[in-house]
Formats: sequence, C-alpha cells, structure tokens
Amino acid sequence: MHRTRVRVVESALDANDTIALANRADFDRAGVAVVNLMSAPGAGKTTLLERALPSLPGVRVAVLEGDVAGSLDADRLSLLHVPVTQLNTDQGFGGECHLDANMVRSALPEVPLGDIDLLVIENVGNLVCPAEFRVGEDARAMVCAVTEGEDKPLKYPLMFRACELVVVNKIDLLPHLDVDLDALLRNIDAVNPDVPTLLTSARTGEGVEGLREWLVGVASREPVR
Amino acid sequence: MHRTRVRVVESALDANDTIALANRADFDRAGVAVVNLMSAPGAGKTTLLERALPSLPGVRVAVLEGDVAGSLDADRLSLLHVPVTQLNTDQGFGGECHLDANMVRSALPEVPLGDIDLLVIENVGNLVCPAEFRVGEDARAMVCAVTEGEDKPLKYPLMFRACELVVVNKIDLLPHLDVDLDALLRNIDAVNPDVPTLLTSARTGEGVEGLREWLVGVASREPVR
Repeated sequence: MHRTRVRVVESALDANDTIALANRADFDRAGVAVVNLMSAPGAGKTTLLERALPSLPGVRVAVLEGDVAGSLDADRLSLLHVPVTQLNTDQGFGGECHLDANMVRSALPEVPLGDIDLLVIENVGNLVCPAEFRVGEDARAMVCAVTEGEDKPLKYPLMFRACELVVVNKIDLLPHLDVDLDALLRNIDAVNPDVPTLLTSARTGEGVEGLREWLVGVASREPVR
Repeated sequence: MHRTRVRVVESALDANDTIALANRADFDRAGVAVVNLMSAPGAGKTTLLERALPSLPGVRVAVLEGDVAGSLDADRLSLLHVPVTQLNTDQGFGGECHLDANMVRSALPEVPLGDIDLLVIENVGNLVCPAEFRVGEDARAMVCAVTEGEDKPLKYPLMFRACELVVVNKIDLLPHLDVDLDALLRNIDAVNPDVPTLLTSARTGEGVEGLREWLVGVASREPVR
C-alpha cells in the first residue's frame, strides 16, 4: 500500500516536471526570469513585495499571486501599478496547498510575458509541498519570519534546502520575542550550508534593498538552460 | 484530466474516513477523547501545550506529535512528564504536509490509550491540508498567531471553518504590530460564524486558562457517536 502510494506521487511529480519544462520554454522565448517565492502563511511575502517591487531599477516586473481563496494580496499589489495575475487553488476541492507547474501554466495566458523582464510567483503559504513542485522558475527564495521560531529549518528542511535565498523577516520584532536569531541562522546553515540570508523588516523597510538587489540579479542572469 | 484527478483525491479521502472511523472505535473502547490541534508553522501550538497541559485538573493527557522531520516538539513536551509519541511524515518522500488517519493509526500502538483520558494530536504546521483529513478526533481546534495578519481566515477559509475553537495567540505582540485584532476577529466570524475564540499569549500565559478549560470540557464530553 505504501509502495504503491509513493509510486503514484512520483509519477505525479514526473508529470509536473514535464509541464515545468514547457513553462520554462515559454519564459525563455519571452526572455523572462522567474522567481518562485515561498513561505509559511503570514511570513510577509506580500509586504516585502510591496516594499521591493516599485523601485526595481531597470526591471519590468509582474506578479503571479497564488492563494487558496480570494484576491487580497493581488488587490494589494495591483495598487503598485505592477501587473498582477490571481491564481486560486480552491477549484473543485478544499484547496491545493501549493502551486504546481500545471496551475502556473493555466495562468500564463493572463501574464503579460512580452512586456516584462521578471515574474515573481508568490506561492501558497506552506512550508512543505511548494518546495516539491517546480513550476519552471529560475530561482527559488523563501521568507522565514523570526516570529515562527528558530526551529523551523530543522522541522521543514526540504523547504530551506530547496531555496537559494532565505529572507529572515520581521526582525523589528526581535526585541519582543524569546527567539534566538543566531540559533535560527545556525539552523538555516545546518540544513542548507552557505545559503545566502537577508535580514529584513518589511514593516520598517530595513534590509529590503538587499532583496531588490537579489531580484535584479536574477533578472539579469544569462539563461543557462 | 482535472475530473480524473478530483476523483482520485475523493477516493483517497473516502479511504481516510474509513480508517478514521477505525481510530475512533479504538479511542471509544479506551474511553479517550481526542483533539486535533492545527495551525500554520510557528503559531505557538507547542508552547501553548507546554503551558496548558501540566495543570489539567483531573485529566490524564498524552500528546501525539506530528512533524515532517525531527522530534524537537516531542522533546520539549516530554519534559512535562506527559507521554509523547513522535510521528514523522518524511518517510519515502519529501514529507507529508499533514497527518492523515492512517499515519495516526500507525502510531496508536505507541500511545498509552489505556492510561489516559485525553489525547492531543499536534498536527503538522499548515493551514490547508490538515483540515481535509479527519483522524478520528472528537474536536478540532486551531491556533492563529496575530503575527500572521488579519487576513488569514479569508485566505485559508476551510481551516477556520473546520474548527470548533480558534485560539488567537501571541497577543502580547499586538502593541508592536500593524495588525488590527478586531478585523481578525471579524474575519474569523465571517468564515465560521459564532465559533468561540480565545485570546492567548503562550509567552506570558495570558488566556491559557481558557484553553485548559476547553480541553477539560472536551475530555468530559459524553460520547455521542
């Protein structure tokens, strides 16, 4: 029973990877770099994007906004005059806990790929499954709020390993928490040695310049595919 | 393709419900009430249990601790001299994002059902899938930290609807946040009208007495199955 189940899941992942390659080909044709941004619910992805996206030097950006239900984040981001496409995962069932390549593919006709350099895909808030499904992205980044505690890298290692940038957000709250920032950074390094980390407060703007620079760097990467 | 997929998921849920009933029968035979406790990662489930469980009047309690990886929370709770069973979901794949009835069933031989009145199942941190899988519990409760923002009930409605208690935690941080507590409570009420809410700070202990009373109430319910 268990073996059968694993086989089904692996076959679903193979199908996902095939569709991710098709997305990748579309992004390449349009010359668009793609970031898959992940986190637990409420870690601050949208607020960070509100801070970082309006002043990305020389980069035309759009957002694909993944949510189980509603368009709250898309509504917030559209105020920035950045093209935003809403992708809800609640069709036909209680809701998918992640975006997969096929869901992203279904939204691509609504994304103005010909007019942008960078697409940021804001994934569903979840520290497990989003890391298992590639969607055709160039780079994966995650946001980890210090309020979540220093143990999260050890409890959700795949997510921290899957990313090439970890944004440690809400650092303005550190004086009010019993959270050990050094222990958090050590735990991140333990599961993904030498992964770059950025300390930010989306609320105050501290550190957001580093995220901006990272996004510009991804947008200017030479395609090596 | 989409229709087929939904059918597979529904059939998996049917199988889950069958196993949940078998768990339920085992709990009934032992006279054990069961709470399924859910939240996003880092909302404070374990810290709340550390506060609430040592002084549950007249109730012998054990914990079944669900995590993708590691035994950090189980190690913390075992310091309370409460029986704790660790259940990891990372076998064979990148990790399951929720507990299902079969996972719980596989752990039951390690749970001292004959010696307890109440079993608290601490689910994997995730606001989507745990709400879709019954495990044989009497009651479901969730913890929502104010740090996650006031919009979470609207973005993850199934989780808020599935619960008969919503614990609003980390209220000690409210003076340091741009979060509107009244709006959060209104949003909870909008998706699950009249669900009881408890305002708590696991850090200071404020409000934890209410959680204790609720747990005692579940433990003393007459089985109506």
